[in-house]
Amino acid sequence: MEPSKETTVCVAQVFRGTFVHSTLEDPLEVLDNTVLGVDKKGKIVFIEKGGDVKSLSDKWGFLDKDVRQLDPHEFIMPGLVDSHIHASQYSYSGTALDLPLLQWLNTYTFPVESQYKDLKFADKVYNKVVRRTLRNGTTTACYFATIHTDASLLLGEIANKLGQRALVGKVCMDRNDAVNDYKEKTEESSGETKRFIQKLMEKKYPHVRPIVTPRFAISCTSGLLRELGDIAKNSNLHIQSHISENKEECEMVKKLFPDLKSYTDVYLKHNLLTDKTVMAHGCYLSDAELQVFHGTGASISHCPNSNISLCSGMLDVRNALNHKVKVGLGTDVGGGYSPSILNAIRRTLMTSKALTIQNPSHQTLTFEEVFRLATLGGSQALSLDSETGNFEVGKDFDALLVNVCVPEGPMDICGPEPTKVLLEKFLNLGDDRNICEVYVAGRRVVPFADKAS
Amino acid sequence: MEPSKETTVCVAQVFRGTFVHSTLEDPLEVLDNTVLGVDKKGKIVFIEKGGDVKSLSDKWGFLDKDVRQLDPHEFIMPGLVDSHIHASQYSYSGTALDLPLLQWLNTYTFPVESQYKDLKFADKVYNKVVRRTLRNGTTTACYFATIHTDASLLLGEIANKLGQRALVGKVCMDRNDAVNDYKEKTEESSGETKRFIQKLMEKKYPHVRPIVTPRFAISCTSGLLRELGDIAKNSNLHIQSHISENKEECEMVKKLFPDLKSYTDVYLKHNLLTDKTVMAHGCYLSDAELQVFHGTGASISHCPNSNISLCSGMLDVRNALNHKVKVGLGTDVGGGYSPSILNAIRRTLMTSKALTIQNPSHQTLTFEEVFRLATLGGSQALSLDSETGNFEVGKDFDALLVNVCVPEGPMDICGPEPTKVLLEKFLNLGDDRNICEVYVAGRRVVPFADKAS
Ligand SMILES: [Zn+2]
Ligand SMILES: [Zn+2]
Repeated sequence: MEPSKETTVCVAQVFRGTFVHSTLEDPLEVLDNTVLGVDKKGKIVFIEKGGDVKSLSDKWGFLDKDVRQLDPHEFIMPGLVDSHIHASQYSYSGTALDLPLLQWLNTYTFPVESQYKDLKFADKVYNKVVRRTLRNGTTTACYFATIHTDASLLLGEIANKLGQRALVGKVCMDRNDAVNDYKEKTEESSGETKRFIQKLMEKKYPHVRPIVTPRFAISCTSGLLRELGDIAKNSNLHIQSHISENKEECEMVKKLFPDLKSYTDVYLKHNLLTDKTVMAHGCYLSDAELQVFHGTGASISHCPNSNISLCSGMLDVRNALNHKVKVGLGTDVGGGYSPSILNAIRRTLMTSKALTIQNPSHQTLTFEEVFRLATLGGSQALSLDSETGNFEVGKDFDALLVNVCVPEGPMDICGPEPTKVLLEKFLNLGDDRNICEVYVAGRRVVPFADKAS
Repeated sequence: MEPSKETTVCVAQVFRGTFVHSTLEDPLEVLDNTVLGVDKKGKIVFIEKGGDVKSLSDKWGFLDKDVRQLDPHEFIMPGLVDSHIHASQYSYSGTALDLPLLQWLNTYTFPVESQYKDLKFADKVYNKVVRRTLRNGTTTACYFATIHTDASLLLGEIANKLGQRALVGKVCMDRNDAVNDYKEKTEESSGETKRFIQKLMEKKYPHVRPIVTPRFAISCTSGLLRELGDIAKNSNLHIQSHISENKEECEMVKKLFPDLKSYTDVYLKHNLLTDKTVMAHGCYLSDAELQVFHGTGASISHCPNSNISLCSGMLDVRNALNHKVKVGLGTDVGGGYSPSILNAIRRTLMTSKALTIQNPSHQTLTFEEVFRLATLGGSQALSLDSETGNFEVGKDFDALLVNVCVPEGPMDICGPEPTKVLLEKFLNLGDDRNICEVYVAGRRVVPFADKAS
């Protein structure tokens, strides 16, 4: 007699307690008294609500002592997905937020980014940002690096070493008059992109992949955009860029591409809007443009901290969702000051509420919906939802073990509360102190193996 | 020969390093290499930039070993002032933010507040909120308690015991149909207010004082408002209430007081607008009403987290300041989810930036201006600026010792930075982990003397 399929799977880790996650149907599913098993490859092999450990252990062949029992103040939630973050801007995050986008880029950003030709500087900052985002619960990050190929490869190496799931983009820009040397020739940009992709793929990192990264329409000639669209198409790669962040930018794009009918059309016509494309911001996208996003399967990374900090605008997420556009959340460090998706969750709620203040008929996002944007939504926005985003059998176990009652923690619990209330409290008031353990594909990546943090 | 005045003062503590604070002229004054001395009563006796410790110690008679030398990642700033916080709502802070003000009060707030007749419950929550706000750097808090006199007295006792400067208000409300028993008869409310004031004054707590607290115009009859105005006037007491938080509330006030020409006029006509009055919110005050605030010396507590969380509105702080109205910041826990004035600073900047997004000609507040609102502005709003708010000789030493580089802290410093940048980074990204010590009137109140936190 053949053994059943299940008994051939080796269950490496088992967790028992309360789980919370989102599904397509339900923005918040609370799974109390649930048992979840992870195999050696980090994939979820079972999740059983009210599951009886005895019969599960008989079925899957794990031992009682292998079961990690959560305490009543703990729950496990999916890892947070940062669908847009500039690793290279982390050094000055939390400062320099007094100028609008284009002036901010020229004054603060390009001068700093140009320093990443220095690999020592890159190593220092990239280690800090990957560690910080992991501590903050970001299991998946979609990074902008800089134009420097070797430093961008180093970012991929660091993400792999520390265990973060990441898409890493070497930035492409062949138009920039603000900072000497911080731009490329067109052929150099596409050539280095090819080299970056090849080198990164050769490493065969299990969870780190390249993403084609034109900075934005203003920084790229039509020729470069076309080459990058071709590169992405030929290798079926992810693509990221910025769109419709700020009004002045939108005006300038109109002038630079007078023959194209919209900002969205600029990317569409250069083969850069695909179902593996994520575009940051989109504050000023028209309904017609949102329809193009829906039609192509391209997604929006909503970066509310950045949008408010730089006085860029406010994305109406409800409208994007009504157009069935995939939406994830992004910190957009350093236009956003916080490298935490918890902050992005809070700012997403606040932006939605600010829109309600302006227009009381606006249907405010609920905290449950924003929780979904930060987890499952992010994985969809990055076209990684077959691998991560929630607790479905077959997906990787990307998860946070949250304790709402840690000693010296950031918040107080004043009495027994249902899980939903504890989650809401954590989303509003919690921080990295509450995130006791972080898992990416079953590997515990926080606390860090070494001590440096 | 008589000794000089200075030598008769006993200097109890001396700090040397970098200080930052605000003055009337300058929203951010950075005092590098400065020496500050505090006497036994906790008052600042000298502050000397570039001060020579040797000559200062000769002059003031302290010893070298008494000098606390700050390290390069440390600075001292004034304690934070929370000009509006409901201690009684702390238990559910960070949750229940899905309803507008009046429905929120009836559904979540009144049912919880009615529980404070139970002194054991009050003791638990009030200890938590005073400890939490102290840890967050709130050296001065202006509290709403509940209608319960004994529980309100307990809040004063706890603030005194833990060393926080506080104004404590027993809430007055003789109109409320939402929750049975959670209201008073008119004469009961004024009588209990008198008892509360007398009992609290009898304690002779050095830094805890009563504040007359009509909840807001909707909860109080004209008769009660008049009696409270008289009580405040007869004893020259502080007054606090709410005004113009939400549009529905403003409409209801118009209906309840049809003969009075504005919401401001309701309080003015009942002698409740004085130069010791602080009114929370004020989102919908007209310019004419702001002129009344200026004329009476009444102040506004700006509570941006609450205003956005409950979709109430957005105060144009710039306009209030242009009308020379005193403005402080408030957390408004639990309408605001965060018990930290650092959060109020961030939300004040964001609200100002949201107003700029709506109207590009709006003059956005700078972070330096918001820093002033959180410290000196708060002390002015509470009419306590002769005692606290910045580092002037003769004021009490209410201060935070901030270290931007604590181990396991919330942020990364990537290189040497000027103090102004470190402060900006702390204001955007710091938390209680960076607030290593808190002083109120020279007494170190954080870390706590005991371990419970
Ligand atoms: Zn960006
Ligand atoms: Zn209030």
